[in-house]
Amino acid sequence: MFKELSGAREALDCILQLCPPLSRTEELPLAKGAGRVLAEDICSPVDLPSFNRAAMDGFAVRAADTRGASLTAPVYLDLGREAIPVRTGMEVPAGMDAVVMMEDAVRREREVEIMAPLYPWRNVSRVGEDISRNQTVLAAGRRLRPPDLALMAALGWRDVRVYDRPRVAIIPTGSELVSLDGPESPGPGQAYEINGLMASLYVQQWGGRPARRGIVPDEKELIKETIRETIRGTMGPGQAGREADLILLIGGTSVGEKDYAPRAVSEMGRLLVHGLRITPGKPTAIGLAGETPVVCLPGYPVAALAALYLLVRPALKKMARLDDRLKTVSATLAGKIVSRPGYLTLARVSLKGDLAEPIMTSGAGRLSSVARAEGIVVVPEESEGMEAGERVEVMLIE
Amino acid sequence: MFKELSGAREALDCILQLCPPLSRTEELPLAKGAGRVLAEDICSPVDLPSFNRAAMDGFAVRAADTRGASLTAPVYLDLGREAIPVRTGMEVPAGMDAVVMMEDAVRREREVEIMAPLYPWRNVSRVGEDISRNQTVLAAGRRLRPPDLALMAALGWRDVRVYDRPRVAIIPTGSELVSLDGPESPGPGQAYEINGLMASLYVQQWGGRPARRGIVPDEKELIKETIRETIRGTMGPGQAGREADLILLIGGTSVGEKDYAPRAVSEMGRLLVHGLRITPGKPTAIGLAGETPVVCLPGYPVAALAALYLLVRPALKKMARLDDRLKTVSATLAGKIVSRPGYLTLARVSLKGDLAEPIMTSGAGRLSSVARAEGIVVVPEESEGMEAGERVEVMLIE
Repeated sequence: MFKELSGAREALDCILQLCPPLSRTEELPLAKGAGRVLAEDICSPVDLPSFNRAAMDGFAVRAADTRGASLTAPVYLDLGREAIPVRTGMEVPAGMDAVVMMEDAVRREREVEIMAPLYPWRNVSRVGEDISRNQTVLAAGRRLRPPDLALMAALGWRDVRVYDRPRVAIIPTGSELVSLDGPESPGPGQAYEINGLMASLYVQQWGGRPARRGIVPDEKELIKETIRETIRGTMGPGQAGREADLILLIGGTSVGEKDYAPRAVSEMGRLLVHGLRITPGKPTAIGLAGETPVVCLPGYPVAALAALYLLVRPALKKMARLDDRLKTVSATLAGKIVSRPGYLTLARVSLKGDLAEPIMTSGAGRLSSVARAEGIVVVPEESEGMEAGERVEVMLIE
Repeated sequence: MFKELSGAREALDCILQLCPPLSRTEELPLAKGAGRVLAEDICSPVDLPSFNRAAMDGFAVRAADTRGASLTAPVYLDLGREAIPVRTGMEVPAGMDAVVMMEDAVRREREVEIMAPLYPWRNVSRVGEDISRNQTVLAAGRRLRPPDLALMAALGWRDVRVYDRPRVAIIPTGSELVSLDGPESPGPGQAYEINGLMASLYVQQWGGRPARRGIVPDEKELIKETIRETIRGTMGPGQAGREADLILLIGGTSVGEKDYAPRAVSEMGRLLVHGLRITPGKPTAIGLAGETPVVCLPGYPVAALAALYLLVRPALKKMARLDDRLKTVSATLAGKIVSRPGYLTLARVSLKGDLAEPIMTSGAGRLSSVARAEGIVVVPEESEGMEAGERVEVMLIE
């Protein structure tokens, strides 16, 4: 039995406390910066445009020369001296301060006939009109979108300094597990290790850098040794010298004889939470191994998914300085959701138009229920369930 | 002047017509499949679980042996013969059909004391209970999420067949442009080529594979030659032999003397649309070069952005078989939007809580306005603008 179950909110506060926003940064070419978080204010080193730029195809003129022009009394300007042909984007020659649109002028052999007066800077983008030198155009902390990177390029940047993505070590445990990468297939009592794959894909999707370790059998000392290696900074191939910002220890999280994960964490630091009032996902734990935060994820894939969404996602987004809003849609429940009183219940639903259909299933081991589910309806701890016809917010499973 | 302007809807229908969903597929390791579109139905080759699996830590028993057990008249079963210790996930031995939870039994030296009867298959996940052999678990056309790939892994798949991403050739044109990758910086009348970067980042974000070509000067024959190479399948480094599914030709799209892009397309196939009733974005064109669809994007970055969102995004999503719903939020307009009657107006707004503040700006050349904008409010063609206080849907700029 779990000694003391924690509420979902309490557990979330606990992991967020352990995961401050990262301050490490790296420099990348602009073409690799999309979706990353800018680590410094970008001040413009130049005026943009850097010259007076024609905004139309036509003739550059002095606005004063067109004073009084009208249909009945057109003004005639010398072609090439007083009215100089320009194309959109070209520099307006020094001394000129307006562009007559092609359509508003008649080109004669040596003259240009203008039928209406222009005010100064008409059809001209003036120096610094878009951006002026030393102006802050992008502030640190912004998630970079393609036009932001295009703007930096326009100002002459080639690289961009962004915050590092959190490094997440993923350690699957379980003597019954068979690696997907090996030649073996599972015999009786065995199964492929799949939570490591799922966690790793989510870590990537949520802005982190996953490093998957091999399967560790259910032996406490081996688990501790793997955690120790991870903390020391031997996170796996190509990651030498990089310590993990967060460890996900998968499986063996319950209170059975061979559930070593929480005990290993406890012996290497502190076990802060063990057992959550959420369903599925009860056998989840949070702790510190040395200084490194650890989330112990249940081995049942549906329970692991619940813990990933409730705890790991917000922690990663915080470390990565990314917005952690979930994608949701509103829907009407097509059937009853029975929830476990006192527990936060995560009910899987499939969506059909505006209807959310609860997926009836008992087991947290049933992968098929997640494949069928488009979303999750979260039933609060104090609720006894939800009735068909109720309006609900459905969290979409990304 | 444009000969005949097309409406936004008409232009969208035109490009969608030219861009059917791709049928080419490729095979990837599961770890690379997230976000891709499944190209075949996945039928399970096995039962899952593949054996009767204990769902709890406890003792495997024959349910019949526990008949009549009660607190006052417990049943005693032989430890190791009639009651066999099992852990969650282990195989339930042949002949046994239930698991007594550890908490509901008392282990004696040679016996296990059971205080309540069990019905058959209690605490056992039966063979095929989650997924049965030959069951279709994932259907072709699904966008793969991490748990879907985990499910495939559980069933023994190591690779997944997905649809190809559309290949998009990006050809920036303009004699005034300076490459970001070169040593040069722009002199008077010149500017960095940034639309190619922006388009390429968006193509990637929207599920396509961009191939950026070098800058082509404003010379019709050079533009045609570059398009020809692209069609022939020499799309650039590492892409030899791959023809483009879509060409984005950037710049020179208007009706000036040196606006060669639409003319080049026209001479190589058919120009179907030239000039849109949208603002910004009017000088956009759509055509076919040989059999390959081409979108000519305006050189002004804000106009290019508008055309990317209105035409290129839906076309890519269709080719890639991805959902093309835009992310939107509802907001209240904090100021008036003046629109151009008869034109679809894309007004940039910044968001402050529930308020959408229109960004006042004249020019489609103003990059700074996009950096400040979180979203776009689309004002329909028939509208004359929108007033402060109106509720609007804001399309978020990704």
